[in-house]
Amino acid sequence: MSDTLVISIDAMGGDHAPDSIIEGVSIALKKNEDVFFFLYGNEEKLMPLIEKYKIPAERYKIHHTDAIIKADDKPSHAIRSGRESSMWKAIMSVRNGYSKAVVSAGNTVVLMAMSKICLGTAAGIDRPAIAAILPSLTGPIVALDLGANAECNSQNLVEFAIMGDVFYRIMFKKEFPSVGLLNIGSEETKGREEIREAAGVLKSFGKKINFYGFVEGNDIGLGTTNVVVTDGFSGNVALKTIEGTAKLISTTLKDIIKKSVLSKIGFLLALPGLRALKKKMDPRMYNGAMFLGLNGISVKSHGSADAFAFSHAIETAINLAQNNLCSKITDELEHVMDVADSSNGETIA
Amino acid sequence: MSDTLVISIDAMGGDHAPDSIIEGVSIALKKNEDVFFFLYGNEEKLMPLIEKYKIPAERYKIHHTDAIIKADDKPSHAIRSGRESSMWKAIMSVRNGYSKAVVSAGNTVVLMAMSKICLGTAAGIDRPAIAAILPSLTGPIVALDLGANAECNSQNLVEFAIMGDVFYRIMFKKEFPSVGLLNIGSEETKGREEIREAAGVLKSFGKKINFYGFVEGNDIGLGTTNVVVTDGFSGNVALKTIEGTAKLISTTLKDIIKKSVLSKIGFLLALPGLRALKKKMDPRMYNGAMFLGLNGISVKSHGSADAFAFSHAIETAINLAQNNLCSKITDELEHVMDVADSSNGETIA
Repeated sequence: MSDTLVISIDAMGGDHAPDSIIEGVSIALKKNEDVFFFLYGNEEKLMPLIEKYKIPAERYKIHHTDAIIKADDKPSHAIRSGRESSMWKAIMSVRNGYSKAVVSAGNTVVLMAMSKICLGTAAGIDRPAIAAILPSLTGPIVALDLGANAECNSQNLVEFAIMGDVFYRIMFKKEFPSVGLLNIGSEETKGREEIREAAGVLKSFGKKINFYGFVEGNDIGLGTTNVVVTDGFSGNVALKTIEGTAKLISTTLKDIIKKSVLSKIGFLLALPGLRALKKKMDPRMYNGAMFLGLNGISVKSHGSADAFAFSHAIETAINLAQNNLCSKITDELEHVMDVADSSNGETIA
Repeated sequence: MSDTLVISIDAMGGDHAPDSIIEGVSIALKKNEDVFFFLYGNEEKLMPLIEKYKIPAERYKIHHTDAIIKADDKPSHAIRSGRESSMWKAIMSVRNGYSKAVVSAGNTVVLMAMSKICLGTAAGIDRPAIAAILPSLTGPIVALDLGANAECNSQNLVEFAIMGDVFYRIMFKKEFPSVGLLNIGSEETKGREEIREAAGVLKSFGKKINFYGFVEGNDIGLGTTNVVVTDGFSGNVALKTIEGTAKLISTTLKDIIKKSVLSKIGFLLALPGLRALKKKMDPRMYNGAMFLGLNGISVKSHGSADAFAFSHAIETAINLAQNNLCSKITDELEHVMDVADSSNGETIA
């Protein structure tokens, strides 16, 4: 089993768990022959699903536990008292070296906190961040932080830029992705002080990072840069504003189509095209937010993920594990810091 | 002329000025028979347009000036040295009581700064805010601040809530609009301290303001509340993210339609419906951002506004002037403060 990659799955987290989780595993394992799954959860509930979705015996092992972190559990309480939960145990298996990544559709706050406690923050990183892949006119982009840190200083933003750069390179096999700092104007004097400071530091890195400068909210959809860096408050607002806008447009479109026979016929004719649009914009394709900056790979699936969406989160975890995300981030940090130290004496801290 | 409302127009600001400005005036004056326009700008350039768009002589007066604030002028320089500009003079006419509102499509930063200098900040208001009307699933909503204040404290947010409440009531003739505070989670412990503090103050106002609690980015498109209150950084990010997402969806849709004959035919059949969607989402319908919290009405049109969009900004200015926006904000502030003082001793400051 030396070439086998082990991925830990919190089989009990999420709105449709454990059914959609196990079905998601069944989709992911067909595409990834060398991956073995540790499934954390209630064995009695999991076994019928293992049979239903025909998971081969040689591809999984159930680690039984009764305890579950529920979606409406108070995070502070769940974090303190959830040490027997499927989520905690799945993360601990990464910490203890039994698996290379964990995937959970459970509560974000709890998963982030437990991942921090169990895996620890990576050397050189002050605060981990949540990163995700979003659709844009120029292809998928990476955005972070999407909610882990409501307030950030310039050092945090610089670290997010470096982590986002590495994350993008692994996911899309493209060297030297462009990195933009989210601001409310492209002029150098605009926005908050910490953002202007971070821009100064990123510029001082010279050619070691492809820093584009400031971007604005519309640049996310336009895909102006490959990576968009921001604090967790603005990032979360942007992420959810995209969701709300897409919902507004799709619902309005549906209402209008319903009102006219011609529109309905037109809609039916355009259906293959509209399906392609839906597929391109499908949030399930982009499921799998990543906690960057930890000593281990922890991927958060959307709580409402279906099996297809959950399998995408697993794919992300596999990709990051196969490409040694964590050590690459550490290497990149050292590399950039060295350059900054030797080139002009500026450092992040 | 006792019942005539006078509106000042910066005829030289904006990407398509003065042509689209004068055409916009011609659209607005047909709908508003009792409005008279002061047009600030170069008489030689304006006169041919006055003829082209058949503006009746009894509906306007040109106040000639050669100086213009250009879109790429450095704001700090423009503010200092732009006292002869069409923008400055148009604002000053409001200050001096010759007109009731000013509309400009010129540079936002300059317009905001000049409006503050000329009109002054309203009593009881610490910082003015930029408010705009946005489309949502439940109808138009009001959002503020959209970029005037990159950082805000709890007092600013509370004042924005009160001003947004008044603005919504005037624009949509609905008493007791619901007001939400933008946050990154609906739990009371989430987000930044100033937001939690502002929520506490708004709750203390009891029934005097219809405070909904926290909303998230997706609630803007969903129209969960009539008013969304946030700091100028997050508000600007949200506003521009809506623009970018709409652009992403519409461009992707167009590309897909181009690729298939069936889609094209379907698209043609659905065209009336799609036009209705476009109309509902048309940013021109929502043109006209308002600077709230000044001693006078100053409306900012999008710089790229066409005549139709500019006429909407004029309509907003007329509506706000006819309904005495400024005195209503002052009254509401006093009213809410009184309640807070007498009910439980809490005040905003």
